[in-house]
Amino acid sequence: MTHPALPRALDRLDADRDGALDRLFDFLRIPSISAQPDHAGDCAAAAGWARDALAGMGFTATVRPTAGHPIVLGHHPGPAGGKAGPHLLYYGHYDVQPPDPLDLWHSPPFEPVLADGPHGKRIVARGAVDDKGQVAMILEALRAWHATGGIPLPVTVLLEGEEEVGSVNLAPFLESARAELEADFVVVSDTNMWDRDTPAVTTGLRGLLYTEIEVQGPSRDLHSGLYGGLALNPINALTAVLGGLHDAAGRVTLPGFYDAVRDIPAAQAAEWAALGFDAAAFLGEIGLAVPAGERDRTPLERLWARPTADINGIWGGYAGPGAKTVIAARAGAKVSFRLVPDQDPQAVLDAFRRSVANRLPPGAHATVTCDSAGPGIRVAADTPMVEAARAALADEYGRPAVLIGGGGSIPVVESFRRILGLDTLLMGFGLDDDAIHSPNEKFDLRCFQKGARAHARLLGRLAAAG
Amino acid sequence: MTHPALPRALDRLDADRDGALDRLFDFLRIPSISAQPDHAGDCAAAAGWARDALAGMGFTATVRPTAGHPIVLGHHPGPAGGKAGPHLLYYGHYDVQPPDPLDLWHSPPFEPVLADGPHGKRIVARGAVDDKGQVAMILEALRAWHATGGIPLPVTVLLEGEEEVGSVNLAPFLESARAELEADFVVVSDTNMWDRDTPAVTTGLRGLLYTEIEVQGPSRDLHSGLYGGLALNPINALTAVLGGLHDAAGRVTLPGFYDAVRDIPAAQAAEWAALGFDAAAFLGEIGLAVPAGERDRTPLERLWARPTADINGIWGGYAGPGAKTVIAARAGAKVSFRLVPDQDPQAVLDAFRRSVANRLPPGAHATVTCDSAGPGIRVAADTPMVEAARAALADEYGRPAVLIGGGGSIPVVESFRRILGLDTLLMGFGLDDDAIHSPNEKFDLRCFQKGARAHARLLGRLAAAG
Repeated sequence: MTHPALPRALDRLDADRDGALDRLFDFLRIPSISAQPDHAGDCAAAAGWARDALAGMGFTATVRPTAGHPIVLGHHPGPAGGKAGPHLLYYGHYDVQPPDPLDLWHSPPFEPVLADGPHGKRIVARGAVDDKGQVAMILEALRAWHATGGIPLPVTVLLEGEEEVGSVNLAPFLESARAELEADFVVVSDTNMWDRDTPAVTTGLRGLLYTEIEVQGPSRDLHSGLYGGLALNPINALTAVLGGLHDAAGRVTLPGFYDAVRDIPAAQAAEWAALGFDAAAFLGEIGLAVPAGERDRTPLERLWARPTADINGIWGGYAGPGAKTVIAARAGAKVSFRLVPDQDPQAVLDAFRRSVANRLPPGAHATVTCDSAGPGIRVAADTPMVEAARAALADEYGRPAVLIGGGGSIPVVESFRRILGLDTLLMGFGLDDDAIHSPNEKFDLRCFQKGARAHARLLGRLAAAG
Repeated sequence: MTHPALPRALDRLDADRDGALDRLFDFLRIPSISAQPDHAGDCAAAAGWARDALAGMGFTATVRPTAGHPIVLGHHPGPAGGKAGPHLLYYGHYDVQPPDPLDLWHSPPFEPVLADGPHGKRIVARGAVDDKGQVAMILEALRAWHATGGIPLPVTVLLEGEEEVGSVNLAPFLESARAELEADFVVVSDTNMWDRDTPAVTTGLRGLLYTEIEVQGPSRDLHSGLYGGLALNPINALTAVLGGLHDAAGRVTLPGFYDAVRDIPAAQAAEWAALGFDAAAFLGEIGLAVPAGERDRTPLERLWARPTADINGIWGGYAGPGAKTVIAARAGAKVSFRLVPDQDPQAVLDAFRRSVANRLPPGAHATVTCDSAGPGIRVAADTPMVEAARAALADEYGRPAVLIGGGGSIPVVESFRRILGLDTLLMGFGLDDDAIHSPNEKFDLRCFQKGARAHARLLGRLAAAG
């Protein structure tokens, strides 16, 4: 089923490629780093930019304050004459990760460039793909429909500014704005394709428990010669605690950590095996040769269906040039756990805290604070929305879209289900080598352009079916 | 035996206390941080300051270039008419530790102040006691003799600018300047008193092996959701390596680490026991209650006679506010070992490298670089120089000087013995709570003033005996 106005919307997208890129670059130039308080003004600016973009294509759009960074909400009634199909709620985020380490970027993170890559042009900037570029893709699809046949469905767009810091103010907003968020399902583009030629819909996502641990030592920094051997060294204690997080087989040692973890069903295992994942190539692209993690699991299971523990940062004492013979007063680390469906984040947090208490040397004190906690997600694959998405993707790419798992977390998916009762379609256009959260984050220009076309096609399919 | 001119020298020190403090403050204002290349000019300025001070009291004084920061060398022939006793070689250093963390200082580290403390006035600045304040004490003693009866012995003063970064250029200088460094023994003030009322001579010093380890992970920072479970996390690997450095009894686990370590002789154990060391009070002053280290050793053994392993700094990944779900490309740490006499620094370095290689997870790579390596030192206690020093200290303090061990390292002591054939007298006036290498480093004014008087007395005793 094809909507009669779709060809014009697609033509419009092709004709306005330069304009789309200019608009995305404007969005990327705003350093909306949600984790850093001195960028609060930039987050507000990015929200304003998105509101103006929506208003320019016929949306009633507002910036809503929260206890943190604001939320952008836009409504479009769809075609004159009433509902023509399902009401879509698009979700995305305008905030980005901190760009450090800055010295590894080849161009400044907030001065987007179009660079040459081995597979054509790429957009390079912090947020190029996560998630400003993927949000821009959706906006461009809506803009093309608006400029041609008119947006063919009722649409709500919700963009938050705290996805990279745990979305702490989103759930309260969903609660309070429930009446404005009536829709049939949620559409999110914050995931990846299978590879650059194979589109994908993601049907599982790992959850995330993110913690910070601080170990207290002496009341001040000490000279290691005068005190070493008698004074507690908090870095020694921290490594003693964290060094035992994994056993020799790569399993996480927290008691009970795997109790709720189920093996994937045989049918899914077979589907994933059929994808022909090349672990050596995957690792080779990031300079590694030996897979880490659980030795007795397949690579795709380790990435999509198994929980992990990763230390994301560690600090303490002297890190400058040369030698400083100091025993630090304190040391800390960021420790996070990727969780799979059925694992309870609170139970894992409790187990981690007990493990820390048990492993600390006598006299040492530690605090473990929880930054965010969200469970793993399963999305049913046999729904009309997934089927429409797979069809739209197949139309655009000329090959079937595959169903994949995802290693990352989009905690809001759980909130949409719990608070709004809505399922979420995860249709994303990132690639494994996009370097999100890393220096030189990029979005392949072809992914950006075909992603916008696929979103335009999805609107057409749903409107024609509706 | 008292030198007839000593009373005038002591009176002069008492009369010129304000001048002595002004001169020390000038010295302390120079941020001669040897570890930081952008302070090379300040190191040169501190060397020039010391040369001028020596020249002002009749020394032939020069600043000698080295491959690093320069060395100050001054000669004074002693009294007209020739040698009146032993020729002393004073050693000290004009360089200081980096002052960070700056936010914990109550006054700027290079703006010295005289502050009130629980035991009277204290000089607060980076280098107040380590070692500019103790060097200034010696200079003031020489200045007082120069201004009154004349310096009563032939004296050489050698001040280096790289003690805090391993004294790498000192040994080559000693080799090349051997003819200019003829003397009977070395005198160093870079150690502590037993307590604020009890002077001490130090007869043992731990050595130091200082290393840096870096673990290589992926070729770039990764998103922990997309890669976690399959990609090597270098911080996980680093903590796995370092978390096993100690066993539950507080012993260092490197194979062979204790093989060459001898128990202290019974007589020394008895002397140390008689000191009545109050471990609870010692730890209480630094906010700790439970002694760390080897459970089956006395507190003074742990501090003076047992080797240690301390992680002095650790870094990797994200250490900013909030959450960043990153797998870092690399992680590192500074790891140092305090060594006792008979332990071979090279053997310990080799054992550490083997241990790192054995504990690394499959596919991980690490490099261990050696920053400095110096063995532990024993100084004979039954020599005329130690006896003269104890007598001079008893004269000044009205109570016997005790013989103590020292936990810190003064690697040059070994160089003086090996290259120049000279023994070293370690007579220092620091206190345990001086916070050397820490924020708010201080030197009790009383220690500074009585230390200068004790040095003046030592010169008088040795000249009278000579």
